[in-house]
Amino acid sequence: MSGWLVIAGLGPGADGLVTPEVRAALAEATDVVGYIPYVARVAPRPGLTLHPSDNRVEIDRSRHALEMAAAGRRVVVVSSGDPGVFAMASAVFEALEAGPPAWRDLEIRVLPGITAMLAAAARAGAPLGHDFCTLNLSDNLKPWALIEKRLRLAVEADFAMAFYNPRSKSRPDGFRRALDLLKTACGDARPVIFARAVSTPEEEIRVVPLPETTPEMADMRTLVIVGASTTRLIARQGGPIVYTPRSVPA
Amino acid sequence: MSGWLVIAGLGPGADGLVTPEVRAALAEATDVVGYIPYVARVAPRPGLTLHPSDNRVEIDRSRHALEMAAAGRRVVVVSSGDPGVFAMASAVFEALEAGPPAWRDLEIRVLPGITAMLAAAARAGAPLGHDFCTLNLSDNLKPWALIEKRLRLAVEADFAMAFYNPRSKSRPDGFRRALDLLKTACGDARPVIFARAVSTPEEEIRVVPLPETTPEMADMRTLVIVGASTTRLIARQGGPIVYTPRSVPA
Repeated sequence: MSGWLVIAGLGPGADGLVTPEVRAALAEATDVVGYIPYVARVAPRPGLTLHPSDNRVEIDRSRHALEMAAAGRRVVVVSSGDPGVFAMASAVFEALEAGPPAWRDLEIRVLPGITAMLAAAARAGAPLGHDFCTLNLSDNLKPWALIEKRLRLAVEADFAMAFYNPRSKSRPDGFRRALDLLKTACGDARPVIFARAVSTPEEEIRVVPLPETTPEMADMRTLVIVGASTTRLIARQGGPIVYTPRSVPA
Repeated sequence: MSGWLVIAGLGPGADGLVTPEVRAALAEATDVVGYIPYVARVAPRPGLTLHPSDNRVEIDRSRHALEMAAAGRRVVVVSSGDPGVFAMASAVFEALEAGPPAWRDLEIRVLPGITAMLAAAARAGAPLGHDFCTLNLSDNLKPWALIEKRLRLAVEADFAMAFYNPRSKSRPDGFRRALDLLKTACGDARPVIFARAVSTPEEEIRVVPLPETTPEMADMRTLVIVGASTTRLIARQGGPIVYTPRSVPA
């Protein structure tokens, strides 16, 4: 048997957002590896071994997946959203680069998924309809000073911004500092979208003018989008539509 | 009959990248509206009217879709990729905002899709695995000076960058200027990915060090990704893996 490794994105939560390509890979797999809540989204079946693991063991998990593929297993590493956006693909390649040279001969494929910012943007309207940037607000793997520098430059570039991992119990203060910086640097009431658990039964979408935002509006399951200076609101029943026009006048 | 409007992303090309949610909307539609090659991806069936239209008539197309939904039709506006990323969602909302107030009472949903940069990144490895920005390099709807300003700030922020619409027959020079700017501002040999027609039979992926890039490497169907300073190559048979590690050391 010839093993392979697939790094697949399950999308933000709803079954209707899992691509057929990812479903097909899961149907052929012998082993599924990933963070506990993501592996829980894969239906058990005879011949399939599930390997759920805890958060923050991404490199161990990657090595385990590579070892199994090298031993001839058909392994799918699952991520929420898209595996290439603040998820497992980079971790697997870090492990691959540091591992035995023979691992480089493995068949490895990355299968894209609907990442949280696209699902959140779709729920709110089209806030990412013009140039934008995408930041991980966690300072677990980079200095906080770099996050602040990137926020300032993103404001200067007038990008809309999507924030992953805005806030967690172990990092309660960073998001407050990020909001304070943005309130000062933007100096306007542009809309901020707090999209929690998009496409799941717990989904909540809030649109709040930047000066009225508070850190408590985000948690670990929230994707935050900050509009550009050009981002607009269309008032309507049931909540506004937020969109960024395609044009910037000369 | 109660009409509705869905703005749906068909993904970059392969059927395996169309979400079940989008398939379901197409199955319920009475009318499909969009640019000719995207409407051509929807199978004809009895009861479904296809309305293909030419490029650069996005607002006319949007008004037509809104009028049909207001008249009780079930309308899907199709985009390639994700409808919220340089595609039809912003155009529909521009038309909605400028149109009759009654349009605001319509049921409107945006259904996300696999946007080109995620599919391209997956083919190359994980070049967008750390903070990144996403730019439309066309100056049809914004001044070229703004594009250059954003490129300079993106280099200063050390974002990886994804470029949509890098080059077309009517804009042969902009991409050359963008590459010249990046070669000077970056001053290194970071990898650039040229991903053409990803997930279609015409797919071509090239990875080229920035100093060796030329404008002719991109056309209208190419998505370009420029690595950050931290982006790495893993050499292997059949082309390197390009990935951006999750960490930036302090």
